[in-house]
Amino acid sequence: MIVLSLPGSEPLGIGNKLAEELGVREFKVYSKTFPDGETYVRITDVEKLSRDEVLIIQTFYPDQNTRIMEFLLTLDALREVGINEVKAIIPYLAYTRQDKIFLKGEPISIRAILNIFYDLGVREIYTIDVHSPKILEYFKGRLHNIIPSELFAKRLRDMVELDKTLIVAPDEGAKERARLLSKALDTEYVVIKKYRDRVTGEIRHELPKDLYVRGRHVVIVDDIISTGGTLASIARFVRSLGAKEVVAVASHGLFVGNALVKLRNSGISRIILIKTVPPISNPLLEYLDPTKLFVEVIQSRR
Amino acid sequence: MIVLSLPGSEPLGIGNKLAEELGVREFKVYSKTFPDGETYVRITDVEKLSRDEVLIIQTFYPDQNTRIMEFLLTLDALREVGINEVKAIIPYLAYTRQDKIFLKGEPISIRAILNIFYDLGVREIYTIDVHSPKILEYFKGRLHNIIPSELFAKRLRDMVELDKTLIVAPDEGAKERARLLSKALDTEYVVIKKYRDRVTGEIRHELPKDLYVRGRHVVIVDDIISTGGTLASIARFVRSLGAKEVVAVASHGLFVGNALVKLRNSGISRIILIKTVPPISNPLLEYLDPTKLFVEVIQSRR
Repeated sequence: MIVLSLPGSEPLGIGNKLAEELGVREFKVYSKTFPDGETYVRITDVEKLSRDEVLIIQTFYPDQNTRIMEFLLTLDALREVGINEVKAIIPYLAYTRQDKIFLKGEPISIRAILNIFYDLGVREIYTIDVHSPKILEYFKGRLHNIIPSELFAKRLRDMVELDKTLIVAPDEGAKERARLLSKALDTEYVVIKKYRDRVTGEIRHELPKDLYVRGRHVVIVDDIISTGGTLASIARFVRSLGAKEVVAVASHGLFVGNALVKLRNSGISRIILIKTVPPISNPLLEYLDPTKLFVEVIQSRR
Repeated sequence: MIVLSLPGSEPLGIGNKLAEELGVREFKVYSKTFPDGETYVRITDVEKLSRDEVLIIQTFYPDQNTRIMEFLLTLDALREVGINEVKAIIPYLAYTRQDKIFLKGEPISIRAILNIFYDLGVREIYTIDVHSPKILEYFKGRLHNIIPSELFAKRLRDMVELDKTLIVAPDEGAKERARLLSKALDTEYVVIKKYRDRVTGEIRHELPKDLYVRGRHVVIVDDIISTGGTLASIARFVRSLGAKEVVAVASHGLFVGNALVKLRNSGISRIILIKTVPPISNPLLEYLDPTKLFVEVIQSRR
């Protein structure tokens, strides 16, 4: 096996660590943008690449379409040297929130993309915490969806008083994440209900009536932080109910626009993330390295 | 048959004209970019779309990767309503200059892209003046490559004194374009030779020794104007040899960076283009509408 790092994965610093842990060689893909905007890739030292098992690493944020194009072009470059089937580590798999038809006339974007990958020879994908389990069914190969509950739990044990901790899922979609994390920490969890006030249009959150957060550590868990709107809103809500501390854990931190300002002002004291996209240097944020998660799954498969 | 216009084709104003000329209905694809950068598409009025023959229109510039993603997602949305095979008008097909392996480890980008299109159901592509004829072989369906020599010739007949006109190909790759244009106009043509001075590194151009341009109208013909470097350099060269007027004709005008300033300063008096990418308003430029070219080829196929 060899590891083939695409430039999108460079800021994660994952390629050489992974090659080291697996005891294999790392190759790299050079990439650039032509003046007209076209993407160019080239596998460096390709002549030293035997017809080995190839494990491509690429993450799909930021500039999702260009990261995906780099990935597709790399698959073609591999075919050119006789490598027709590969495995891929995609720490952040983009387009996962377009996982069903919401309005007629829409595509199922993630399904379309996974089909293209399969047709170009991708047989296994290792990724972290996809938006919904439905996505696993869309891929004709094997999609290993790693839920980093244990990694989050390990970090949280050093941070919060577990007997005073409440895990909060911002919506039904995050329930399974909250359940797994609460199981790992042996704490309570709850799913927040969201209402839109019919008169004011305002979004209101609701906790079960018998549940109190006063004086507790609240850990909000989600898969993707994008604009941070939901997370900030829930943080303010539980703070207003007297939560002692609000922490968030999420697999993928995109932080679009002024998300970080919004989150800082919402009363969240810390956000723990997996380094699946290029990390941002900010006192609010803390990144956990996913290399070992991938290594474990890959080694269990060999 | 129905015409399905993607937003990339809107600035060309081609969708409704084409639908009118073909006597068919135009449908549209709505598209937007999510805050995190993902592309979204939706076929509007999809419920009115019967399982008709669909002719998608999308051009691939600017933002090639996003234009291509819109195209791919639209193909998936069509599959969702039972339309598995389509035809496509792609006035500017991007990635055509990556049509062979220049260095080991590279992909053949345009081949990879055309393969994906075919696998997603694209059976015919109508496009204008691809970079090299080799590209036609890469597509498993039918690729109609329209060379707009007649359209250029028609315009040039009103612009230049034909008996004093010399058609110039900037390199061997443009020779066939020059030959066709000179045939249409019944004028001479010549292919410029390019040398790099081994001492200074400077690029020099050379005309055949028995050929004079003094007092003549020079028409430089090429497929794509990108940074405009080659074109400006040749324009200066023929001006220095006494050309009376220098005109350029090219199918696709991308004009990257300060290309237009460079070209204006090189002594070119006019650039005639086909409207295959969003037009730029500039006194140097003149766009010819390609709608009729497409209609002719499509009607001859029905």
